[in-house]
Amino acid sequence: MKYERLTYGMVGGDLKAFIGEVHRKAINFDTRAKLVAGCFSSDEKLGIETAEAYCVDPSRTYKDYKEMAERESQREDKIDFVSICTPNFLHYQIAKEFLLHGINVVCEKPLCFTIEEAKELESIAKEKGLTFAITYTYTGYTMVKVAKEMIEKEKIGKIVSINVEYVQDWLVNSLDPKNQKSTTLSVWRSDPKYSGISNCIGDIGTHAENLVHYLTGFEIKKLVATTDTYGMALDLNSNMIIEYENGVRAALWCSQVALGHYNGLVIRVFGDKGALEWNQEYPDYLNYTPINGAQQVIVRGSGVSKEYKAGLNSRLPVGHPEGLIIAFANIYRNVITTILKKKNGEELTKEDTDFQNVSNGVDGVKFIHKAIESSKEGKWVDYK
Amino acid sequence: MKYERLTYGMVGGDLKAFIGEVHRKAINFDTRAKLVAGCFSSDEKLGIETAEAYCVDPSRTYKDYKEMAERESQREDKIDFVSICTPNFLHYQIAKEFLLHGINVVCEKPLCFTIEEAKELESIAKEKGLTFAITYTYTGYTMVKVAKEMIEKEKIGKIVSINVEYVQDWLVNSLDPKNQKSTTLSVWRSDPKYSGISNCIGDIGTHAENLVHYLTGFEIKKLVATTDTYGMALDLNSNMIIEYENGVRAALWCSQVALGHYNGLVIRVFGDKGALEWNQEYPDYLNYTPINGAQQVIVRGSGVSKEYKAGLNSRLPVGHPEGLIIAFANIYRNVITTILKKKNGEELTKEDTDFQNVSNGVDGVKFIHKAIESSKEGKWVDYK
Amino acid sequence: MKYERLTYGMVGGDLKAFIGEVHRKAINFDTRAKLVAGCFSSDEKLGIETAEAYCVDPSRTYKDYKEMAERESQREDKIDFVSICTPNFLHYQIAKEFLLHGINVVCEKPLCFTIEEAKELESIAKEKGLTFAITYTYTGYTMVKVAKEMIEKEKIGKIVSINVEYVQDWLVNSLDPKNQKSTTLSVWRSDPKYSGISNCIGDIGTHAENLVHYLTGFEIKKLVATTDTYGMALDLNSNMIIEYENGVRAALWCSQVALGHYNGLVIRVFGDKGALEWNQEYPDYLNYTPINGAQQVIVRGSGVSKEYKAGLNSRLPVGHPEGLIIAFANIYRNVITTILKKKNGEELTKEDTDFQNVSNGVDGVKFIHKAIESSKEGKWVDYK
Amino acid sequence: MKYERLTYGMVGGDLKAFIGEVHRKAINFDTRAKLVAGCFSSDEKLGIETAEAYCVDPSRTYKDYKEMAERESQREDKIDFVSICTPNFLHYQIAKEFLLHGINVVCEKPLCFTIEEAKELESIAKEKGLTFAITYTYTGYTMVKVAKEMIEKEKIGKIVSINVEYVQDWLVNSLDPKNQKSTTLSVWRSDPKYSGISNCIGDIGTHAENLVHYLTGFEIKKLVATTDTYGMALDLNSNMIIEYENGVRAALWCSQVALGHYNGLVIRVFGDKGALEWNQEYPDYLNYTPINGAQQVIVRGSGVSKEYKAGLNSRLPVGHPEGLIIAFANIYRNVITTILKKKNGEELTKEDTDFQNVSNGVDGVKFIHKAIESSKEGKWVDYK
Repeated sequence: MKYERLTYGMVGGDLKAFIGEVHRKAINFDTRAKLVAGCFSSDEKLGIETAEAYCVDPSRTYKDYKEMAERESQREDKIDFVSICTPNFLHYQIAKEFLLHGINVVCEKPLCFTIEEAKELESIAKEKGLTFAITYTYTGYTMVKVAKEMIEKEKIGKIVSINVEYVQDWLVNSLDPKNQKSTTLSVWRSDPKYSGISNCIGDIGTHAENLVHYLTGFEIKKLVATTDTYGMALDLNSNMIIEYENGVRAALWCSQVALGHYNGLVIRVFGDKGALEWNQEYPDYLNYTPINGAQQVIVRGSGVSKEYKAGLNSRLPVGHPEGLIIAFANIYRNVITTILKKKNGEELTKEDTDFQNVSNGVDGVKFIHKAIESSKEGKWVDYK
Repeated sequence: MKYERLTYGMVGGDLKAFIGEVHRKAINFDTRAKLVAGCFSSDEKLGIETAEAYCVDPSRTYKDYKEMAERESQREDKIDFVSICTPNFLHYQIAKEFLLHGINVVCEKPLCFTIEEAKELESIAKEKGLTFAITYTYTGYTMVKVAKEMIEKEKIGKIVSINVEYVQDWLVNSLDPKNQKSTTLSVWRSDPKYSGISNCIGDIGTHAENLVHYLTGFEIKKLVATTDTYGMALDLNSNMIIEYENGVRAALWCSQVALGHYNGLVIRVFGDKGALEWNQEYPDYLNYTPINGAQQVIVRGSGVSKEYKAGLNSRLPVGHPEGLIIAFANIYRNVITTILKKKNGEELTKEDTDFQNVSNGVDGVKFIHKAIESSKEGKWVDYK
Repeated sequence: MKYERLTYGMVGGDLKAFIGEVHRKAINFDTRAKLVAGCFSSDEKLGIETAEAYCVDPSRTYKDYKEMAERESQREDKIDFVSICTPNFLHYQIAKEFLLHGINVVCEKPLCFTIEEAKELESIAKEKGLTFAITYTYTGYTMVKVAKEMIEKEKIGKIVSINVEYVQDWLVNSLDPKNQKSTTLSVWRSDPKYSGISNCIGDIGTHAENLVHYLTGFEIKKLVATTDTYGMALDLNSNMIIEYENGVRAALWCSQVALGHYNGLVIRVFGDKGALEWNQEYPDYLNYTPINGAQQVIVRGSGVSKEYKAGLNSRLPVGHPEGLIIAFANIYRNVITTILKKKNGEELTKEDTDFQNVSNGVDGVKFIHKAIESSKEGKWVDYK
Repeated sequence: MKYERLTYGMVGGDLKAFIGEVHRKAINFDTRAKLVAGCFSSDEKLGIETAEAYCVDPSRTYKDYKEMAERESQREDKIDFVSICTPNFLHYQIAKEFLLHGINVVCEKPLCFTIEEAKELESIAKEKGLTFAITYTYTGYTMVKVAKEMIEKEKIGKIVSINVEYVQDWLVNSLDPKNQKSTTLSVWRSDPKYSGISNCIGDIGTHAENLVHYLTGFEIKKLVATTDTYGMALDLNSNMIIEYENGVRAALWCSQVALGHYNGLVIRVFGDKGALEWNQEYPDYLNYTPINGAQQVIVRGSGVSKEYKAGLNSRLPVGHPEGLIIAFANIYRNVITTILKKKNGEELTKEDTDFQNVSNGVDGVKFIHKAIESSKEGKWVDYK
């Protein structure tokens, strides 16, 4: 028998939580995995309401994630994977529990707070042969994938310089001392208990770093960073210079207080034969400048974009904006294909496994630690 | 008992059809209506495959839309509405059949080909008290709704001039005489049998005209139009000047051969106190210029956008692109709420019925006829 | 003896007048013509002050343009050309006077108010073999010239559609009835005595029409127009559809009340092999989309721009904005070269005479009359 | 007697040199200083031709800048200032010579190559009470001045973060080893003899740093930098993090190999109450985002821009692009006013002295040295 659809469970993601809903809509987009189990909230009533809203059977609605991992793992029709949409500080323990019970995991970034924990999760997943995806959202956009393929096909030649920024302004009110003690802010963002050692780098800087790695495959050699807390416990702004193993340097800037920027993840990769620029707020458009040629705009869904295999990830006709949910759906499409094929004993292609996994999650945690270390010590930090 | 979810059926929209999939994903986005019946294809095998793919019970998979209308209307658990996603030339007969059997209808635009047919459908729906929605997609975008509310709230004062264009380039190959006989083009687009009296105006010009009406409520008094067929049977490009009952004029341009434009629906509305500009390819951004002030960009999800009630239609945080599927989902959200509330005997608000209905569909058909008439006769045509 | 520099005189253009200063700076830019005579103002004191400011000898500072034409024409070292920078309603009589005295003329647009006057000036210039340039400013921009050359070289194939607009908002306050009687507005703009039969079409619509003609060479066959006066004596906004002799249609829109637009002259020319778009506010950038290719931006001063002979008009390196004065200087560069070469008995090249002349001025006057006629009569108007 | 016009001389700037011509056109723009002396070229013939072209009297055309300084300084009608437009490596000796002879100096940046030389020039100028302007071009743009005034008026509150880049691509061919020995490149750029210790930072990085200082007045405390030479002798690309005395950090990136960027000087200044963004390629437009408001575009020449005193620097109406020459002319306008007023014994206003002077030149030289030091030593470098 060939499996064609999967079932999944969710930890976190109650009706009031934003990101859980995004995950469900993204999975639902292709209707290839059905939500059948969940431990949605520490608030029992809210958990039950969420289960009802999504038609999850009460018998598979759990109060406790440990109970869920255990009981699901014992069912013949156990969930094929669990999506972890809890606050970040719970990722580690929940992911570990499901892995140990042999269940594939999809987890929001950051994977966890310490490098040791991250590596532990990586090694359990590896040992058990489980799929462990990290939802680095922006790698799901078609034009990011086209950019990656263009780089692989040497459309920009040898890379010589990189500039990446991920800047927002939604925490600008934190700059006002009057607000810094307020509970109306997303206070957990600046509370080390809930956010670990970093707020801004952990939340968005890692996306920027991951995007460089996704596009280029470059490994970091060393970095120098500054962080700005403006009176809060954790960073709200950070500048870095990163040097990769091959000697190429990147400037990376992340901020949550950059007025006029909303979700401004912009990456520019410069080679000796061409350059690429992509902006998350206009995700269907990829700027490409070949040496000795004019600047071009490659649009998702256009004939030019479909000269690249990655261009076929496009879901809607040219000029009809796809948006974030489809980027997310593209990630889940590959995760689900991978789990399905493994279940069916089929061979995986490079395209099937085109999603970020636990090793990228480990990289992200390491990146946060190295950046904070450099900032604290006021010097370049090696990446060994 | 209070209804919270609906069931629906679909005519057309087999696995290979693009627009049926868009409708399903849009309805599915909010999981408030379930697909339970269908007559997906004139190709029986493809119809069955589609039913299987969407878990539609074979007993409710029909070969013929008449059979579907009749048998569904007799069930106690009959579908709450039918989505018609067939080629345009079939809209009239299918919509009529379902209306006559007392089933609510959601239909793609154009509603049908003749004014008489359009008015007939309008009067049946009215008589039977049925909901009849037309999916003028672009009215579903949050920032279009914000623009509408800004106009209602006199943020731009008295409107003095309008400029709207809907330009694409996907039929540019039709300009080459060698291709004009080819079957590789979307030939039905230029075949009066399948497209009625107009291709370009019918397909996209009507969206532009509808958008003006949606935003301003203006009624057309007269228009002058040219159409360009470039050797094909039907129009591929059209320019118009429209005069509304209140004396305001609009320029409208639609084209399928405007190289470098993908799905370029751009509307600019100028008042004596401000101006608005919206571009479908960047739907989350609304340009607003108040008199004596600087040009502003109002972004979906921002605090500024949420000063308008319509801004609350936003689904994702600021800077995270929503895209076309969400615009479509917003339309279905209102259609479903309307049908649910009517079923539950609840009162409808202005927001609930914020979708285009059969009367807007009638307007669209009339617009096509008047434009073609003006073009043929080379003169201004009154709208009586 | 070979002439290398010219002398010129100016009528109008006192110290307080904007456009006279633009002409002087543009001529001065290349220091190939020296201001030596003038009749700068009807206000004698202001005229003398202007002469002093520009070191014009008192003996060649005139109170009356007729005196100036006469006395200059009698000097051995008479001015090589006169620049007419007076209010529009004086153009005809002044131009005629200088032509009759054998002096080359550079005149602001519109040439004059009636077709008869325009043709009279054209025939005097022709008969006398004089150079008569009209400063249609925008034809001076390098990237406009590149666009023209690209069209000539069939980079966009056969033209199928044109869209041009010239929209501003500086007269938006005229929409308020309270202001319509005010003298603080540029009242002469709406006074037929000073502006002839049209304000907006005459002032900026003619630039748009001229730009189409400059780029394509197309001759108008007929047009249909509306004009909006909003309670003023003359038009503030106008929409047109133009049909050219070869059957191609253009939409043209001009406005002085389009809030959020400053000096928005934007032209888009669509062919069956490519398309071009140019926006006066970003004059160094030309958008080009070849069929089956990506949209490109050709930048003035870049290698790509210099593949075109016209690209060599560039004065500054790529990325260093040139601006309006240089466009104007480019026009005068060619006018001066033409007059110099004629004086030296040298042969003129196509590049030398690349400026708009009295015949283009005649076209502009005719265009205004036809558009107003169409608007008044509410119908298409033939161009015979 | 009140002086109203000045005379000036030029060193360098022969007919074939680009930057000399820019200086002459900029000075000429306002016709308040006349070129009367020069030592234009080491090539005697070319020097004479240049003098002739600009009507400089042979008696004031010099073969040697020392002779020029000496002889001019002895004339009663000596030049009021000298413009130095020679290659950078000659700036120091020429500037010193003229200062010692009591002549005001306008010099291209970089001022010179060593900090000692720079300070020497600064102290001579100070001691002699001479005006010594450095033409940091971009400080001449009206909207840069508006931005400066907005910051002074606390429109963006307390500054918290800065991001500036100055990126070009015109040396991208240097990345190809085959070209690195070629003489067709601007080889002197990479030759320490002619460019000192830095190419890219010296040429454009200093503009970026100067612009931050001009806008904010911030003084650097320390910086960390990397430089990329890609096989050439000097830097072609550089990333920096700068910390100012007040603790604010800036990221600075300059490059001559960033494909797709032409003269991309972009600065973003973020405060706790607003943010500003300005891009040299679109110099008439200033983006401004107030906290809790929408992003705005303030356009040179608009009513909004003229709410700022600096907005009155505007020369052309809104929407009519000014460009680089006018920015340059704005600098000279102030320099000339300053020299004139000093000559006339009048008091200088803040607006009169709004140009960069020798102290800013010293800062620029120091900046280059500190950045190269940081890059070489791989660590943060203090600015003491």
